[in-house]
Amino acid sequence: MPPKEVDTTISPSATGPALALANSHSGNHPLKLYAGWFCPFVQRVWITLQEKEIDYRYVEINPYHKAPGFLALNPRGLIPTLVLPPSEAGEQRVLYESVIVCEYLDEQYNSGTRLLPWDPYERARARLWVNFVEKKLVAGWYRFIQHTQEKSYTIEEVRNEFLDNLKTFVKEMDDEGEGYFGKEGFGLVDVSFVPWAGRLWLIDHYKPGGVGIPKEEERKKLGEEERSIWERWERWYEAVMGREGVKGTWSEKEEYVGVYKRYAEDQTGSEVGKATREGRVLP
Amino acid sequence: MPPKEVDTTISPSATGPALALANSHSGNHPLKLYAGWFCPFVQRVWITLQEKEIDYRYVEINPYHKAPGFLALNPRGLIPTLVLPPSEAGEQRVLYESVIVCEYLDEQYNSGTRLLPWDPYERARARLWVNFVEKKLVAGWYRFIQHTQEKSYTIEEVRNEFLDNLKTFVKEMDDEGEGYFGKEGFGLVDVSFVPWAGRLWLIDHYKPGGVGIPKEEERKKLGEEERSIWERWERWYEAVMGREGVKGTWSEKEEYVGVYKRYAEDQTGSEVGKATREGRVLP
Repeated sequence: MPPKEVDTTISPSATGPALALANSHSGNHPLKLYAGWFCPFVQRVWITLQEKEIDYRYVEINPYHKAPGFLALNPRGLIPTLVLPPSEAGEQRVLYESVIVCEYLDEQYNSGTRLLPWDPYERARARLWVNFVEKKLVAGWYRFIQHTQEKSYTIEEVRNEFLDNLKTFVKEMDDEGEGYFGKEGFGLVDVSFVPWAGRLWLIDHYKPGGVGIPKEEERKKLGEEERSIWERWERWYEAVMGREGVKGTWSEKEEYVGVYKRYAEDQTGSEVGKATREGRVLP
Repeated sequence: MPPKEVDTTISPSATGPALALANSHSGNHPLKLYAGWFCPFVQRVWITLQEKEIDYRYVEINPYHKAPGFLALNPRGLIPTLVLPPSEAGEQRVLYESVIVCEYLDEQYNSGTRLLPWDPYERARARLWVNFVEKKLVAGWYRFIQHTQEKSYTIEEVRNEFLDNLKTFVKEMDDEGEGYFGKEGFGLVDVSFVPWAGRLWLIDHYKPGGVGIPKEEERKKLGEEERSIWERWERWYEAVMGREGVKGTWSEKEEYVGVYKRYAEDQTGSEVGKATREGRVLP
């Protein structure tokens, strides 16, 4: 069955904490975030705006029914799209690509959390791990949730590869401090993965065998090294999910179940879903 | 026939201008570029070092026979790898991922050409187009050269998609100035694509119908808009290829023919080649 182009089961607006946050940013403002409440790429930018205590207007877009006004702003039609206050010369200024937008906000605004370290070498190291998140963990998450019996590779292969990459990521985390990835505290590496970390339960929900991260009971049977990796993972997860700037951006859990059903059936018409299905570079 | 893991037809060292440049950077230096003369990702960093007038040691690595000493420096074994002078605390510092290394060099060294604009918005726009180069033009170049009759898509599809993306890129170029992509002059967007722009002739050499960029004679028959796009392309190509920092990094043309034969047969064992063949995210 060919995938349909339009996903119709999606709630038209955020729910739960994300709805309250969106409503509190519904007034006019020269800085506008064109968002979709369920989009993890959007969520990176949303978290960044909150962490940096920047004011903005939140504009909900349905990426499957893009409004002409939105396409006029960004002909590529990608969310997140950030519309900046016009330049002094009155030029319209638009940015997209989630990590690029997060970096822009971090460079342009001195308020709130500093997301990238000041030192050029430490900054480059952070970018390396954002890159790892993007190419291994995010791409792997989509391969995982879109896995079906028809694929030329098994779900065990996908799971093992994903868990290996996750362990590589965890081993690189700072050993001390408050639990975040880098020693400077909550930063861009954390931001870049939080939205998918907080969607891992959808793989447990939809895929036979689930993600495969050992639960507390199972961890007791593991060797020292394995056990400490998963304990570190849990410490990271608790730390990032507990941030105020992160908590406010989540909708009700059951709404995600509906959104990701089409991914789990490998029937989504989303750009990232199609690229994953076709074995293409993610958009 | 399964692809072989080792490409054995490759010259062990650079030739032509690149050999002269490598030789002039063969003395010991605390900043070291681990390079492969034929690798376009390496070439981005090499051009950056030259443009920024940074001194360094050039170390030739065969990525198909990685020396243990190199793997000890970077267990992921990717080139380019940049080894920095040790930190004050004596910590070994290593970077990889070509664009991240170029950005690091631009931030760390004030000498020579400034590759990214100072203004955060302009810098974000440049990053957007580096991202476009990476995801569309570079990925498209590999899909093109690795196309074989066995693929599920035709070479015409690959060509049309590549040319559409190239035109999108050209239309975004600055209309005035010296021919470079951005209005600030030669910069990171140019650096990010030069190595593949300078390898387009290999697609002409190996693939039926070639890249498909219209030659001067053919351009005369095109409509105004098409013609001006390809004239702008040529102006960019002449400008970037004429840079001293670019010219010095090329080996002899015939050496590339040998290297890319295995790509053209879709038999390469390189990381980027395998990812392209398997429809995976590029490493």
